[in-house]
Amino acid sequence: MDYRFAARMRNAPESFLKKLFDVSSDPEIISFAGGLPDSNLIDVNGIKDSAAFVLDEEGREALQYTTTEGHLPLREYIAERYQKRLGISASADNIRIVNGSQQCLDIIGKIFIEKNDRIGIESPGYLGAIEAFSLYEPVIRSVEMNDSGPDLNAFAQLISDEKIKFFYGIPNFQNPTGRSYSKDTRKRIGDIISETDSLFYEDDAFGELAFNQVPRVPVNKYAPANVIICGSFSKTVAPGMRIGWIMAPREIISVFDAAKQAADLHSNYLCQKIMNHYLRNSDYDRHLKEVVSVYSRNCRLICDLLDDMADTGITHTSPEGGMFMTVNLPEGLSSMKLFEEGIRRGVAVLPGIPFYAGSGGEDMIRLNFSNTDEENIKEGMARLSGLLTDLSSF
Amino acid sequence: MDYRFAARMRNAPESFLKKLFDVSSDPEIISFAGGLPDSNLIDVNGIKDSAAFVLDEEGREALQYTTTEGHLPLREYIAERYQKRLGISASADNIRIVNGSQQCLDIIGKIFIEKNDRIGIESPGYLGAIEAFSLYEPVIRSVEMNDSGPDLNAFAQLISDEKIKFFYGIPNFQNPTGRSYSKDTRKRIGDIISETDSLFYEDDAFGELAFNQVPRVPVNKYAPANVIICGSFSKTVAPGMRIGWIMAPREIISVFDAAKQAADLHSNYLCQKIMNHYLRNSDYDRHLKEVVSVYSRNCRLICDLLDDMADTGITHTSPEGGMFMTVNLPEGLSSMKLFEEGIRRGVAVLPGIPFYAGSGGEDMIRLNFSNTDEENIKEGMARLSGLLTDLSSF
Repeated sequence: MDYRFAARMRNAPESFLKKLFDVSSDPEIISFAGGLPDSNLIDVNGIKDSAAFVLDEEGREALQYTTTEGHLPLREYIAERYQKRLGISASADNIRIVNGSQQCLDIIGKIFIEKNDRIGIESPGYLGAIEAFSLYEPVIRSVEMNDSGPDLNAFAQLISDEKIKFFYGIPNFQNPTGRSYSKDTRKRIGDIISETDSLFYEDDAFGELAFNQVPRVPVNKYAPANVIICGSFSKTVAPGMRIGWIMAPREIISVFDAAKQAADLHSNYLCQKIMNHYLRNSDYDRHLKEVVSVYSRNCRLICDLLDDMADTGITHTSPEGGMFMTVNLPEGLSSMKLFEEGIRRGVAVLPGIPFYAGSGGEDMIRLNFSNTDEENIKEGMARLSGLLTDLSSF
Repeated sequence: MDYRFAARMRNAPESFLKKLFDVSSDPEIISFAGGLPDSNLIDVNGIKDSAAFVLDEEGREALQYTTTEGHLPLREYIAERYQKRLGISASADNIRIVNGSQQCLDIIGKIFIEKNDRIGIESPGYLGAIEAFSLYEPVIRSVEMNDSGPDLNAFAQLISDEKIKFFYGIPNFQNPTGRSYSKDTRKRIGDIISETDSLFYEDDAFGELAFNQVPRVPVNKYAPANVIICGSFSKTVAPGMRIGWIMAPREIISVFDAAKQAADLHSNYLCQKIMNHYLRNSDYDRHLKEVVSVYSRNCRLICDLLDDMADTGITHTSPEGGMFMTVNLPEGLSSMKLFEEGIRRGVAVLPGIPFYAGSGGEDMIRLNFSNTDEENIKEGMARLSGLLTDLSSF
């Protein structure tokens, strides 16, 4: 039988994730390739207590259908935290709960992108966003990143030259580079999008993972009518519950609701209630402090060990938060080759290729520092060092 | 600021669901308009025990990211149940877990429908399917339903005249009519789709809710390579956990995986594990028997009370399972008027309009019989009877 799929499915970029999952289940391989938070830092007992409470006290309701918008007390919690932490205006009316912030990418793609519409992203940019948006068949325009964010001249030029539907970026501890926009860049982007009536999709999956725990002002603050901001509890509480959110202007939210309802009626109500109870009855800030102390220690250790490999010709980013960093490879060494040789030598890295909408990423790898302990970091980095020495001596 | 949404969002049919939720929260109104299973029949204690077990024994894993495919033991359970209950060939490799079977509608729409592609549906047909498919901008062709399923001549003609991407139907206890395909119709549809290399989307959300608990042979059995079959635990265990599934040929599953991954990475892992534990450690068949005995009693009571109103000119379907039936109104009485007057008199019914892709449904209402107890059914039907007498005497 001949299945006649829609042309858009030919746009699905080849996914590394399947291969990565196979790699990550091999105990002989030390992996810096994945994107998992540290399982040991998940507060299983706290979540278990909240699950017991919800099922005892509100079980019948939590297990029934609910509204598309998402659990109101959870949306209120998110709004209050935005106000308190970031000093931005936020209301539960503008917030919706989704199945992890990946679902925002899909739904925002669906409600904005028509075939051949222009959208803008960072280069390199988040591979999950490229995958989600690609299925709506846009033309993706990339803006180079530097250490303070997207190149502002290129950003302004893109906005003025092409009527992009939106620009997608991760101002805090970007995936893959770990870089953050400077305060000035955030303000300048806010100014540009307000002046040009443009839309900025501010993905803030990592904002709570600042190593120094000092909140950074979001682009949203400078241009709230021009910003969609998304967040997630996957990196801070537990990814397996699939709870993320979007906050956006009312006009966008009402169209978003129609698409979310068609997509799956509503997000898992049981876990929304568990998450709300957990956030309100645990010491979330203390939990975050613990998470961040582990990730920052790991990150520093990896940076130090990479510095020791400087004579192979590599350079690396120096994140101040998040879960990822990137390493630029010596000229002539391909990231796919490093990936494949690495597997053979028991160390997995992620080639940069899927982080580019067009070509690119042959000279770059992403390293994850949230899911490997000190001993494995040392051994894994020793393997990487040996590999780089051997491969770059050709 | 002017938000430039994609044209597809203009295709979103006006949703009654928001209005319905408002109605269903008013305690003065007896509602037959919704689509909720009976909360009192949800096995909260059983699910609570399974949640405690999962969080005790596998909490760290259940709260972490997992693969897009879904929890293997749950997929195996579903496959075994298909084999045992329906005698159809089934394997976990062909099964994927989704956020309620509504998500299948969205993803199948995404992977098959290009703008202006033809698809076929039943008339009347499930409103959630019309909503989900519409966002991919198909031309929807409808086939009239009779008491034994879609009109077979019209079905065959549609298949031969238009190269439809797929035909979507609910052979068991259809939403909205409660009607089922006859065994002969199932076989004939299987023959037609095999002979013409066509695809049938068999939505089996209600198959487990046969009042006599005798399983009915799915279309899948006659043409497995030509059928996508979907199911859900929302009607049988708990909708708030959002666990549904798709079973389809491998070629479709591999494309489905790419779209599911882009849509939300994976379904809620915690609830997948809880559901799997619950199904394997509770007496699921006994639970279903209890659910079905309540729904069949409610259904019979409503049918009897509707028969008593026959002099107003109404006729109704007589479901042998599921949660819904339809009532054809006397000539000249509009379903929207009945809905609006009903709200004023404390009884809510659902106008047939959203169950038609084109025009239709002005002369029909849907009644839900799964979420109202005997006392409320009697009082609600008395209100409906008074209303029909008053409105049809004009």
